[in-house]
Amino acid sequence: MEVDLKFFLTAAFLAACIAFAYAAYLCLWIKKIKVENGRILSVGKLIKEGADTFMGKEYRTLACFTFVAAFVIFLLLPAPLNRSDTLTNLTVAISYIAGTVFSAIAGKIGIYISTLANTRTAEAARKGIGKAFSIGFRGGAVMGLSVVGGSLLGVAGILALTDNGSAMLGFSFGASSLALFAKAGGGIFTKTADISADLVGKVELGIPEDDPRNPAVIADNVGDNVGDVAGMGADLFDSNVAAMSAALVMAINLDTNGAINTATVFCYAVLGLLSSVIGIMTAGMSKKGTPTGALNRSTYVTTAVFLLLTAGATALFEGFRWEIWGASATGLFVGVLIGTVTDYFTNDAHSIVKKVAASSATGPAFTVLNGISYGFVSSLPAMVGIALSALTAYKLCDGLGEGYAMFGISMAAMGMLSIVGMIVSNDAYGPIVDNARGLAEMGDLGEDALRNADELDSAGNTVKAITKGFAISAAGLTVISLLGAYMSELNVKAAQLGYPPVEFFSLTDPTVFFGMLIGAAVPAVFSAMLMLGVVKNARRMVSEIHRQFREIVGLKEGRDGVRPDYAKCISIATKGALGELIPAGLFSILSTLTVGFVGGVYAIAGFLMGNIVSGLLLAMFMSNSGGLWDNAKKYIEAGNEGGKGSEAHKSAVIGDTVGDPFKDTAGPSINTQITVVSLVASLFSGLFLMFSIF
Amino acid sequence: MEVDLKFFLTAAFLAACIAFAYAAYLCLWIKKIKVENGRILSVGKLIKEGADTFMGKEYRTLACFTFVAAFVIFLLLPAPLNRSDTLTNLTVAISYIAGTVFSAIAGKIGIYISTLANTRTAEAARKGIGKAFSIGFRGGAVMGLSVVGGSLLGVAGILALTDNGSAMLGFSFGASSLALFAKAGGGIFTKTADISADLVGKVELGIPEDDPRNPAVIADNVGDNVGDVAGMGADLFDSNVAAMSAALVMAINLDTNGAINTATVFCYAVLGLLSSVIGIMTAGMSKKGTPTGALNRSTYVTTAVFLLLTAGATALFEGFRWEIWGASATGLFVGVLIGTVTDYFTNDAHSIVKKVAASSATGPAFTVLNGISYGFVSSLPAMVGIALSALTAYKLCDGLGEGYAMFGISMAAMGMLSIVGMIVSNDAYGPIVDNARGLAEMGDLGEDALRNADELDSAGNTVKAITKGFAISAAGLTVISLLGAYMSELNVKAAQLGYPPVEFFSLTDPTVFFGMLIGAAVPAVFSAMLMLGVVKNARRMVSEIHRQFREIVGLKEGRDGVRPDYAKCISIATKGALGELIPAGLFSILSTLTVGFVGGVYAIAGFLMGNIVSGLLLAMFMSNSGGLWDNAKKYIEAGNEGGKGSEAHKSAVIGDTVGDPFKDTAGPSINTQITVVSLVASLFSGLFLMFSIF
Repeated sequence: MEVDLKFFLTAAFLAACIAFAYAAYLCLWIKKIKVENGRILSVGKLIKEGADTFMGKEYRTLACFTFVAAFVIFLLLPAPLNRSDTLTNLTVAISYIAGTVFSAIAGKIGIYISTLANTRTAEAARKGIGKAFSIGFRGGAVMGLSVVGGSLLGVAGILALTDNGSAMLGFSFGASSLALFAKAGGGIFTKTADISADLVGKVELGIPEDDPRNPAVIADNVGDNVGDVAGMGADLFDSNVAAMSAALVMAINLDTNGAINTATVFCYAVLGLLSSVIGIMTAGMSKKGTPTGALNRSTYVTTAVFLLLTAGATALFEGFRWEIWGASATGLFVGVLIGTVTDYFTNDAHSIVKKVAASSATGPAFTVLNGISYGFVSSLPAMVGIALSALTAYKLCDGLGEGYAMFGISMAAMGMLSIVGMIVSNDAYGPIVDNARGLAEMGDLGEDALRNADELDSAGNTVKAITKGFAISAAGLTVISLLGAYMSELNVKAAQLGYPPVEFFSLTDPTVFFGMLIGAAVPAVFSAMLMLGVVKNARRMVSEIHRQFREIVGLKEGRDGVRPDYAKCISIATKGALGELIPAGLFSILSTLTVGFVGGVYAIAGFLMGNIVSGLLLAMFMSNSGGLWDNAKKYIEAGNEGGKGSEAHKSAVIGDTVGDPFKDTAGPSINTQITVVSLVASLFSGLFLMFSIF
Repeated sequence: MEVDLKFFLTAAFLAACIAFAYAAYLCLWIKKIKVENGRILSVGKLIKEGADTFMGKEYRTLACFTFVAAFVIFLLLPAPLNRSDTLTNLTVAISYIAGTVFSAIAGKIGIYISTLANTRTAEAARKGIGKAFSIGFRGGAVMGLSVVGGSLLGVAGILALTDNGSAMLGFSFGASSLALFAKAGGGIFTKTADISADLVGKVELGIPEDDPRNPAVIADNVGDNVGDVAGMGADLFDSNVAAMSAALVMAINLDTNGAINTATVFCYAVLGLLSSVIGIMTAGMSKKGTPTGALNRSTYVTTAVFLLLTAGATALFEGFRWEIWGASATGLFVGVLIGTVTDYFTNDAHSIVKKVAASSATGPAFTVLNGISYGFVSSLPAMVGIALSALTAYKLCDGLGEGYAMFGISMAAMGMLSIVGMIVSNDAYGPIVDNARGLAEMGDLGEDALRNADELDSAGNTVKAITKGFAISAAGLTVISLLGAYMSELNVKAAQLGYPPVEFFSLTDPTVFFGMLIGAAVPAVFSAMLMLGVVKNARRMVSEIHRQFREIVGLKEGRDGVRPDYAKCISIATKGALGELIPAGLFSILSTLTVGFVGGVYAIAGFLMGNIVSGLLLAMFMSNSGGLWDNAKKYIEAGNEGGKGSEAHKSAVIGDTVGDPFKDTAGPSINTQITVVSLVASLFSGLFLMFSIF
């Protein structure tokens, strides 16, 4: 069949509509379920209010930032106003704003549905695990569908309206910069609350997790929503948009087959969306099944469906190349592989978690050292996987013509991200059932409900580790292809401005490695800023919890009708997170601009590479160490190595506390940081060309 | 004055003789001092025996490895025997063996003098701090002088005898591979003993550091010698040789002025040696001075003298260029700057250490998170410093002609390493006075002696942090210049073998970033292997200490005449260290060979760069976090934040235990790992060219 780009653009719009319609259907399905328990309703309301308040304040702060940034973009991009026409600059600025708005809406939808599904899951857990699983999973699926639908709609819309690479990158930059702040802010919020609640509740007082006497318990549940649902949704929205944008920017600038390649990108995105829809439809626990099994099965279904559909499309459409299909399949395959490795390092079914648990008996220093060491080791297979898939994709497509090799890498990233709808669904399922567990405890729903909620929660944790590995690898491939997009954009600008084209960035060029050394340090400093934020706020919140237990009479004893001041803790976490998220995000953006204006376009290329290399390493290390500690603690709590209250358990709790900001604040934010830096570099490449010192 | 290479070679031999003669004089001076206290003599003897036993076993293991490696080198390098003449291959193999032997001798001398000086320093501390300082410092200086003398003698000797780049790199590779194993082995030994002694002694039983009842106390003192003296000496011997070799390999292959540039390298090395001699001579505590002041003063004297002497030489000799002097001065300046930054992050005179100490009151997880975060932050100024000095040196020398830019970077590394004699002296001073403190405690020398020894020890710790920053930065510049040497060697081989010359390594070449991603993961895995080794052995030793306290009647109570079985702990540390050092070292070498034979010369260039970038980042992070935790603990022990026994102190001890293998095992070993990888890459470049898969 002959390829018509319009056909695929229309298909993209239709697919987005399907995603939204299905999401709306699931949403209504969940809404129809009634919650009867009054206690759950009231706690659920507190969580919802806390989350809405935080999101409201966060978005207000970010709106100011967005408008300032949009104004700067209008003045400077793609070229300073005096060298460019106003309309072009306005287009880029508006695309940027559109990117932030789309991302914000996705986050908002996520919060809406997760605070709706958590109470219903909790209540359903009383009657059995099957129905509760469905509610939790469908809640997550609403978020997953919104993310894929929204990103496809946005990217297709920008292409249809502007047909301009800078506008596309502007849209992507909008999505990324919002994700950067949302992820950092949400991550700081959630871990501030989580650590403080655990430290005073579990460690000092020995009361159970989610005990309603704990003043930080609602803040902790709010944190799950704003950090893991909204933040993570923004993150994967951003990766997905960035992967498509990078592929499209290269496709547009490719030889005469630009239209066919552009069509390929949309075709793969549409088929990925449809595969996710099918995967979500088939999810469900069989009578004898486990929640983990159900989640994994639907992921594998999505993967298989995507491979079949894209193979079919390649056979059907003229000009679609099997090499591109191979590149995308390689990406998907490696993604699954890296997920498996992550599982090996972080799941207590394997030996590593058991080893760390065993060493905890000798003291917390050993828990920490072992966790860091295995986290380091776990980075190797992931790095090799990303390296090999990029190399394979490149070599597969190199023969297709000039520029196809880098395009192949971007299609590998697209392949890895094809199942992003499924990934987000699984990931958002986690905090919903985590919340449900808390609600079951606080609403006193009884042993059965708690056991069911626990099982759902533990499946969420296992799956989370795998999806996180997936997300980081996808970001890795995406940013490698963004390096290609940078070079492509740079040469477009160079041609416009009359500079000679840039042919290569040489490793032994001192400006390149000048940039590389600095770029490598940026993710380290960025994660440090986030972790220091968590520590600072957690110390503040711990004092507040101490104060409440000291001053509120009858709280510690659990006297009837005595309630802690939950709102105060929520407000501490909110204020702290809002105070810290801007500096860390700005640091990443400003360091890129500084290196660019000092060292020029060569230094920036090095900067990007250094950033990618050390960013991937640190992200893998931190996510996996954190997951490992978390599960080592749970393994001990399940009765191993002396069980709860033993020396090993105390050490494991300390390890878990160290791991909390590793895995839920710093580690996963690095993805976004790398993407933002890459997009800033591409967008500002023309300015760096004109105005650098060296 | 006209430049004659022979003159400078002769000067190099003379300078080496001066260093050896002065070292011998200092050695005799120390030996003449009598030790009278019987208890000190007997403990000193135990330490000496333990160290000698370990070194003996370690060197026997390494001798086997060396001969296997030398045989492989003989068969393969610089080209397989069937394509090369036997004599050339024999030269490289013998140079390799010579490198290992020189490095081993330097380590041996270090152990000899440190186990001689420790007892004498302890006894002198009874009478006053001034004399004790002199003994400790002069003991360290013997090691410093041996290292600079030995490296100059070796390099000059190889050049005079062979005039062959591969032989030079072979010698350097010999020094590096020995350093790699010695540093890893010593590092694992020392931290196994240190952690176990602290864990049972300080944390569980609450007995003081260095208490003679503790079965691991002698092993701990042995560890200071084999890890910090022998290991560190081998490390800096290796850096110094590598810096000279890289500079010389490039100088030889530079245009018509090869002889002048070679002479410049030797001239700078000779003047660096003489400056160190002058610096050592002027060291000494004035009546009102502090040991830290005395150590820093002599470092600054060395720096100033070196800058003056090299400026004089540049003015005097025809063909010596001011640009080269500038590059070398930049390196030295940046080295001092990075030392200052390290001091800022790790010295309790500044705010960071105090902040970490303050946060410790909230629990060990906060101590760990803060320490990791500030360690990450501290890497940025160091990376910027290295990047800027490399860029400046490059730009300064770029105008001198083809290839001079990279040569400039290697001269910046030479500049940074010019004061290596001083650095080693300061560094070896540390374990000597640390041992002396232990001996004062075990020999019951009284309050005065203990206070003096404490002051000397604390100066050693402060200075150590700075010299460590220096050593890592020097390694950084050295390996960047080794990248230049790799390219230079590669093209020599390519010309010999009839391949086209390699002009650049492009960042967007997929084989380059394939290598880069994998190279970046190698230092992480390497350090993890070392840390896991420490944890494994420490757990073993802790059980042994527990057993002794349980089974030896009267040991815990300190009954007269009851002694623990020190030898058993020493043997556990020895066995453990020997078992772990080979795998970690082999992993680095084999991963380089694997990437080289899979991805070829382009992949290896990326591999080197990824290795350098992530290696420097991790080395800085780990060394500084470790130093920070150590000093936060000491700051609390000095009576702050609740002092000894407080919650803050308990947390700080855990932080310090995590930091121990960070700063004394993994962090400083990464230097050597990077150097080894770079040298393997250069030496095997011809083989990679011929036999790679891609």
